[in-house]
This record gives sequence, structure tokens and C-alpha cells, in this order.
Amino acid sequence: MIGIDVGGANLKVVEDNSVHIHYCPLWESAPIAEILAGYGEEEAAVVMSGELADCFATKDEGIAFIVREVKKAVPRALFYGTDARFHDLPVRELAAANWLASADFLRERYSDAVFIDMGSTTTDIIPLHNFGHLLGLRDIDRLQQGYLVYIGLLRTNLAAMLGTVLISGTPTPLASEYFAVSADAHLVAGTIASGAYTVPTPDHAGTDRTACLRRLARVVCADLDEIGEEEAVSIARQAVETQVANISDTLERVTGETGIRRIVAAGIGAGFITRNFGAIDLIQELGSVAEALPAFAALEVMRRNG
Amino acid sequence: MIGIDVGGANLKVVEDNSVHIHYCPLWESAPIAEILAGYGEEEAAVVMSGELADCFATKDEGIAFIVREVKKAVPRALFYGTDARFHDLPVRELAAANWLASADFLRERYSDAVFIDMGSTTTDIIPLHNFGHLLGLRDIDRLQQGYLVYIGLLRTNLAAMLGTVLISGTPTPLASEYFAVSADAHLVAGTIASGAYTVPTPDHAGTDRTACLRRLARVVCADLDEIGEEEAVSIARQAVETQVANISDTLERVTGETGIRRIVAAGIGAGFITRNFGAIDLIQELGSVAEALPAFAALEVMRRNG
Repeated sequence: MIGIDVGGANLKVVEDNSVHIHYCPLWESAPIAEILAGYGEEEAAVVMSGELADCFATKDEGIAFIVREVKKAVPRALFYGTDARFHDLPVRELAAANWLASADFLRERYSDAVFIDMGSTTTDIIPLHNFGHLLGLRDIDRLQQGYLVYIGLLRTNLAAMLGTVLISGTPTPLASEYFAVSADAHLVAGTIASGAYTVPTPDHAGTDRTACLRRLARVVCADLDEIGEEEAVSIARQAVETQVANISDTLERVTGETGIRRIVAAGIGAGFITRNFGAIDLIQELGSVAEALPAFAALEVMRRNG
Repeated sequence: MIGIDVGGANLKVVEDNSVHIHYCPLWESAPIAEILAGYGEEEAAVVMSGELADCFATKDEGIAFIVREVKKAVPRALFYGTDARFHDLPVRELAAANWLASADFLRERYSDAVFIDMGSTTTDIIPLHNFGHLLGLRDIDRLQQGYLVYIGLLRTNLAAMLGTVLISGTPTPLASEYFAVSADAHLVAGTIASGAYTVPTPDHAGTDRTACLRRLARVVCADLDEIGEEEAVSIARQAVETQVANISDTLERVTGETGIRRIVAAGIGAGFITRNFGAIDLIQELGSVAEALPAFAALEVMRRNG
């Protein structure tokens, strides 16, 4: 049995206790069936969020495509929905139920906790004390409730995250282009290692420190030698601080409404969350499968359900 | 004699009283020499801002590329700089002097005015009463002073412009993706006609109203039928209102510092500026060349200088 999570940018497969993360942008080639080619005989528990990718006119179209491609390679695949059930057919409930699979898996052991899953693109902030309340929530509901925050460790466009930065103390608005992403900030700030910069760079240049600094300078329309390294590093720090502040605000809202203080963290940003908010790091508890928790969780829920 | 403006996304040529706007993204094929192939015998006054495109590691690299490509096709081209002089060689002063050429052209006739040039990607807000004060300003200086606002009629990513939108009265954060641009909002709000949507769509779908509505719904992770047309139209209105409010704030800052009240507007957004702020519309005064004012202005300044 395997677990599969089909996101917009990444396809994750959990098998035994190992995880395989494949960059698989649905808006480009989307080689889902190729990536899954070796798993034809397996039972599979599948979650998705890739139906939102804008190569699909509607989510129904995205769901139909993903179900078809996965089943081509893995005929016995079943798909977990926002009703917490597994489905054989492409139904609307399959849209963005990946976070619910995680909550379903964690809810007994951590019923007194808020679950935070920080991925490359988004962060889920889910209180686990009332699972029934989570059923049927769509992405737009979660955006409104603070359960889905569009802040990620790698792919977030700095221009969508920061209105202005301070350059030598002067507030400076950012160019509203796709010049730098959160991975540039985290790499320069030292919160990720260079090997963790696993998404394409906005300018198709390298992931070395100088290339990151150049991208950071560009957000204020500057060359690196115009503002100097110190100011580019400062942009990185301000971006990382903004991520912490935004997650903190949302977390306070969720904990304020529930009274919950305990946090469990998963996703590639679990370490970042743990360092900043004192969470239980599921990567320590479960191993690397916690970097792809929804895929692992869907598999565990399927096993639990028999 | 011709005027040329090499932007990051568009190459504009002014010849006599006509203007040709070519979509020419420097980060893709950048067929500058091909576009200019027919002008080999002309004298040309050239301005640029495309050196900031992130296919260039530095602006010097971008300037060198643009000068070389333009001169390949038009050997007698001269390049206007932020020192208000024409140069034959690729020097750093050539970076983003397009707005200064416009100010140089307009400064005598409209010395008591603020000049606003709203393009596809950015809006320049330039007080004309003290030309000397404008010399040598780089983009980062203009960002800090409010002379350069990264709001455009067509290409602005809604996620970089709006933190949240109201959906049925509920504040809803936007997905920090490249899902919809200002052209989607303006087309749906009726502030541009469908023929004016001349930039690529984020999802590579059409520029018809339904395709725009779909992109607008996607910024809150929704299908059009999830939120309904009325709410998607409301997102468009909120985006347009935010553009007006942001330009208004910056304009107030610039007019507050200078005491100037009169406005002259150019660029493809001149009509939008005129309707919202009561400006003199240079497109009425000069004809369509005012849609590519920097190219026209560089040409006129070259003529004036003899």
C-alpha cells in the first residue's frame, strides 16, 4: 500500500517509511502516470490539491484529470475527500482534502493540539479538537478562517508577501513582479540549506547565495552592487520575519478561538515552525514521511479503516 | 527619425505620428533586431527600462544587450540617459531613463503639473516643476519617493496588489500565486475593452469575460460557480478601487510636497487616470503617440537638441 499527494507543483509518494517528492507542475508536462509507473500493483490512498492549478478551467476538470492519470498507473487507487471518505470516482469532494487526511490521522493522538503543516507554497493551521467541524471545508472557507495561509517555505512570491521593505531605513515598495521567492530569503537568512532550494528559481539562474542575493535586490529594482550585500541580506531577514509574524497572527486567532496552546508541526517547514513556535516536530516523531504528511496520513487512515 | 522604448515586456516604436507597440518579452525570445529590421537607415532616439528584466544578472548586462541588439538593426541609434544626455555607448546612465525623457519633453509646457504615465506594468508620477531634481534618479530612488508605483493597467498580479478581498462581506486573503492580473479586473469592471487586453493571460486561457471571471475567482482558490459571478465582479471592482486608492495616495504625497494640483496623463492608462483624477489627457493633445510617450518624447528631445 502507498500514499499519494498530488499537489499543483509536487507529487509525493509515501511507501513503507520512505517518501519520494517529485517536482511535477501540473501546468506544464504533468507526468503523473510516468512518476507512478512502478506502483501498478499497489493499493493507494490518494489526496490532492492540484485541481486548483490554472491549467484547469474548473476544479471538476482538474479532479477528473488527476483521478484519470493516477488510475492509469495505479488502477486500485482510492481518493480521500473533504467528507473524510474514500472515493473511487472523480467527485467534487476530492478538491483539496489533503490537509483533512492529516487531521484525520492526527486527531486522536493530538486532539488537544493545533496542527501546522508548512509546505513549499502554503501553510495549513488546523485545530484538531473538533474533527466534525472540519468536514466539508473548502479552500475559500479555510482562507477565511485562517486555516489556510498562502505562505510557504520556498515558492511564495516576495511581492505577494511584503508591501514594502526598509532599505537603509527608508520604506521602499516592492516591484509587483515575480523576482524573488521565499526560498531566496530563507537560503540567505540561513533558515534553509542550499540543497533544500528544490523549486525553480524565478529568473532560471542558480540557487547559490549570490544568485539569491541578486534576486532579493531585484525586488526593489536594484542590482546587488547598487544596494550592497548587507541590504540584500536585510531584505531576506525582513521576509522571514514577515512569514513568522503572519503565521503567528493566524495562529493566535486559531488558538484564541479554541484555547489550544500545543502545536504539532509537519511539512518541509516543520523545523522552521518548531524553532519559532515551540512545536512538537512530527519529523522527529515519524521520520521524513512527515514532510509529506497528507500522503502518509491518507495511507494510515485507509489502513485504520481496514 | 524614430523614437524607441525598450521595456521589459514591450518594445514601442514611434514614427511620424504613429506608434507601434510590439509584445517583446526580453526574458523569452526578445526579437529586438527583427522588430526593428525595417528602420536600418533611420536616426533613432532610444530609451529603455528592460535592463531590469531578470534574464540579465545585472543591469549593465541588460544595457549592453539592449544597446547591441538595437544597434544591430539601427546603427545610428542614440540612447537617452538619466543625465538627460544622449549616449552612443552602453553606460549605466541608460538604466530606466524612459520616464525622464517624457519629463524632459513636457517640462516647459507643463512646468506647473504632475505628469502621470500609467502603463501596463507601472505608473510614473513625476512633478515637472524642477527638472534638475529628477536627474540621476534610479528606480529605487523613485520607488522611495513615490515617483514609480508598481501598479499597471494590465500586468499587475492581483496577489501583489491586494492583501484580502471581501467575499460576501467576509475578508478573504488571496492566494499568493500568479492567478489573475489587473487586465482581468479592468475588463470585468468595464474600464478596458476586450481588445485592450494585449498581454498574455496568467493561465494561457482567453481574454473573454468568462475567462477573466474564472481567473478572478481563482485568487481566492474558488471556481467561478463556487462564489458566483456577482462576487467575481466584486473582486474586479475591489482591485480597480485599490489601484485608484494607491495612485491617489502617492499622488497626494507628491502634490503635498510640491503644491502642484494640475495633472497631465499619458500611457495606455491615460483615460483611466483622467476619469479618476481630472487630468489633461495627452492622448487627446498628441494623439496615440502619448500611449508610448517616452519613445515619442526621446525623439522630440533629440529634435529639440538639434
